[in-house]
Amino acid sequence: MSTSFVLKSSVRCFGGQQNQYEHYSDTLNCTMQFSVYLPPQSCVGTPVPAVYWLSGLTCNDQNFTTKAGAQRVAAELGIALIIPDTSPRGDQVPDDAEGAYDFGLGAGFYVNATEAPWSEHYRMYDYIVAELPALVEKELPVTQVRSISGHSMGGHGAIMIALRNAGRYQSVSAFSPIVNPSDCPWGQKAFSGYLGSHVESWKDYDSVELIRHGAAQIPLLVDQGLSDTFLSEQLKTSVLETVCQEMNFEAAIRYQDGYDHSYYFIASFIEEHLRFHAQHLFD
Amino acid sequence: MSTSFVLKSSVRCFGGQQNQYEHYSDTLNCTMQFSVYLPPQSCVGTPVPAVYWLSGLTCNDQNFTTKAGAQRVAAELGIALIIPDTSPRGDQVPDDAEGAYDFGLGAGFYVNATEAPWSEHYRMYDYIVAELPALVEKELPVTQVRSISGHSMGGHGAIMIALRNAGRYQSVSAFSPIVNPSDCPWGQKAFSGYLGSHVESWKDYDSVELIRHGAAQIPLLVDQGLSDTFLSEQLKTSVLETVCQEMNFEAAIRYQDGYDHSYYFIASFIEEHLRFHAQHLFD
Repeated sequence: MSTSFVLKSSVRCFGGQQNQYEHYSDTLNCTMQFSVYLPPQSCVGTPVPAVYWLSGLTCNDQNFTTKAGAQRVAAELGIALIIPDTSPRGDQVPDDAEGAYDFGLGAGFYVNATEAPWSEHYRMYDYIVAELPALVEKELPVTQVRSISGHSMGGHGAIMIALRNAGRYQSVSAFSPIVNPSDCPWGQKAFSGYLGSHVESWKDYDSVELIRHGAAQIPLLVDQGLSDTFLSEQLKTSVLETVCQEMNFEAAIRYQDGYDHSYYFIASFIEEHLRFHAQHLFD
Repeated sequence: MSTSFVLKSSVRCFGGQQNQYEHYSDTLNCTMQFSVYLPPQSCVGTPVPAVYWLSGLTCNDQNFTTKAGAQRVAAELGIALIIPDTSPRGDQVPDDAEGAYDFGLGAGFYVNATEAPWSEHYRMYDYIVAELPALVEKELPVTQVRSISGHSMGGHGAIMIALRNAGRYQSVSAFSPIVNPSDCPWGQKAFSGYLGSHVESWKDYDSVELIRHGAAQIPLLVDQGLSDTFLSEQLKTSVLETVCQEMNFEAAIRYQDGYDHSYYFIASFIEEHLRFHAQHLFD
């Protein structure tokens, strides 16, 4: 086992550096890549707070990095962007037998799998919550002041992780999140595979259930496009609205007319999300 | 031959629409795709001026569309972005025998080929100057007030086309342009293939030669990264500087420390380029 931490590429972007790193993950038992945007402030040695970005199904660390246009605002605000992959990777990592896009590689769902053969590698929850930030905060000019955001499956991951780790994140936001994975086809397929049929255990990874069971307040912003073809069957934003109202959990849940599920939607509103996080990161 | 003009996709982006179209090009004798960003102003029916973007080697209409982050500024300024492909396309279009990245498909170099077998399809100069704007201005809420910009091979295309068509464009800009294709390996390979060995004919497609022979002044902005690995052998920005000084041709030629040849460089400065064009488009 190697403990190497290697800079794979480094490109100037908005006065900072867009970097990609490779390391061996003890949590996931495989070699992982992730991307980091270091704003100009951190490139001259000043540690900066970070927004962790969790991507959606089929993505790796490159989708957000190349398409969201987040670096411009991160550079202005002095925020690092930490962009992990969405699942363990490598030839030794099991994948869905039929290569489905919504299970296995590219679809880790940010849980710690308990079922064979997934449990040896599919531990994205621990990777995102513990191993990756410990590595980043040790090796890079990034502080322990964190916020978290994500898209679709990654929106589920961001909200769920923030709700379960009170005090570890200053704020959370999401684009088009899967808010109630226990009750939608994508989530049920993933949780059945990774966590097995004991549905009680699914609640620990379900944002709606976590709020229903009294999760502590954290600043939360959600944007959902009204032309998103996944809204009614998979994302079900209204279920999050309802439970927030029932539990008196404050959340800014916004519907955006005409926007779909794509990175064009993320690009259109990422500035507002980063400014929202900055309010709390620099509080 | 079909004369169809089909909307292939339309996605909301920064309050406007990011569209992709398909049409049969009489100039290129093949079916072409191109992308257009229509800002909010044009979506309610007000025709807007346009910036034409010419991409570099290996690109199609998607690279700039997904990676440059230009839509945000175009939406604010009320400018349409017209983003064509970089060569004719399709099974019937001849390609480099070895599938080289710098000749044939994806590498049209914005010339009208005179040599067989290229001359039947590789007529990107006429496509960009005449057929595409005529189509766009007839079918879309876009005026005849145009500027033009591009990257690398597309930076060559933008400057060369603007210099040869006085009055047709209000301004021109380029990132990392090939300024003197007659005197660099990329340009010599392409011009030899498309135009043949009569090097005198190459000068009509060479920005440095066009300025040397008295091209009329047009507002020109160039950004070139100093960590661009193609700078010394292929791009040779200093040759453009020299001929501009010799000919008293005004140009803002800027060197950007630490930036490479990638879309991260374009994303970092596209706002300044669009604001430069807006000054002249709305003059």
